[in-house]
Amino acid sequence: MPYVKIEVTREGVTRQQKQALIAGVTDLITAVLDKDPKLTHVVIQEIALDDWGYAGEQVSVLRENGITATRK
Amino acid sequence: MPYVKIEVTREGVTRQQKQALIAGVTDLITAVLDKDPKLTHVVIQEIALDDWGYAGEQVSVLRENGITATRK
Amino acid sequence: MPYVKIEVTREGVTRQQKQALIAGVTDLITAVLDKDPKLTHVVIQEIALDDWGYAGEQVSVLRENGITATRK
Amino acid sequence: MPYVKIEVTREGVTRQQKQALIAGVTDLITAVLDKDPKLTHVVIQEIALDDWGYAGEQVSVLRENGITATRK
Amino acid sequence: MPYVKIEVTREGVTRQQKQALIAGVTDLITAVLDKDPKLTHVVIQEIALDDWGYAGEQVSVLRENGITATRK
Amino acid sequence: MPYVKIEVTREGVTRQQKQALIAGVTDLITAVLDKDPKLTHVVIQEIALDDWGYAGEQVSVLRENGITATRK
Repeated sequence: MPYVKIEVTREGVTRQQKQALIAGVTDLITAVLDKDPKLTHVVIQEIALDDWGYAGEQVSVLRENGITATRK
Repeated sequence: MPYVKIEVTREGVTRQQKQALIAGVTDLITAVLDKDPKLTHVVIQEIALDDWGYAGEQVSVLRENGITATRK
Repeated sequence: MPYVKIEVTREGVTRQQKQALIAGVTDLITAVLDKDPKLTHVVIQEIALDDWGYAGEQVSVLRENGITATRK
Repeated sequence: MPYVKIEVTREGVTRQQKQALIAGVTDLITAVLDKDPKLTHVVIQEIALDDWGYAGEQVSVLRENGITATRK
Repeated sequence: MPYVKIEVTREGVTRQQKQALIAGVTDLITAVLDKDPKLTHVVIQEIALDDWGYAGEQVSVLRENGITATRK
Repeated sequence: MPYVKIEVTREGVTRQQKQALIAGVTDLITAVLDKDPKLTHVVIQEIALDDWGYAGEQVSVLRENGITATRK
């Protein structure tokens, strides 16, 4: 009976990316824990940039200053 | 000091239904745990169909395929 | 597809009380939203009294001072 | 590695207030737990008044009845 | 800035399985959203069987009745 | 009606530190949002080091390798 919540900043996540996250997390849990996928729920919650703080600063301000979260 | 979070897909939940959920959960906790209702908070969070995954699939896709969550 | 989290202070909640909460919340959601119970998950999380703060004070301190959460 | 979620009713919280919450919580955790701020994330989630229940009643109804959450 | 919470029933999840979940979810998010892994936190929360309800019944009772969550 | 959840790795957080977090967060919310403290609940959840993942690795492994979360 797994339940997974994914919180991510709202920065243009597409429907296809959401589907990839849902399928990927469900497959992972099925493979690692041998759980019936029909008992696995995944919820994605996008958070506005003003509402996410990192290192004491709003992400909206970080982005305005050119600081991204992209893989280096 | 109970706190309850109800997450449900966003599919036309009315204000009256939300009030019924809030009153019902609060009454239940008062009855079962004998808690002062003034210490019970209930938060309802509606989740867009693209953002809820079940059995590895977006609920929006399940609905497009005619699969509902309605009581049988 | 509802998911419900109930957070409550750890003060001797019995297995029977937990079952009453689980059955009661599931019945409520089935009645109000007409959801298939097989899609409803309820998770109870008990919180130690040192870990719950109310009005700026640990509940463990409130209890030591004779302040309860019982229905008046 | 702290993660903090702040849930508050949606009643005109400004960008400046959000920044003050994010900075204040991060500073507090740094001071109390001596954590690197670069490992602290704070997420603010505003909840519509119909979706928050207190004492068995929707906050939207409480507000219509003149009941506020303001400091006395 | 993703944060992921995985809730799963406490049924003998090993340290290796937890590591596989953490690595797998982080890799997935890096691949799908192109996020820096240093900004991704994953929290696993195991829930006692008495505390997880499914279809209105405690999972502990379901297990006593021979009903498992294993993949079919 | 604020509710705050603080998740932190379980690494010897004392009762006094928890009280400082609870009092500090409640004071902050009272100051910034002018909320009645009697409507503010704060919940601290300590997470075992095996259960928190950062950058794809369990924190328990990071600690074994001498990597701390302490302020630089």
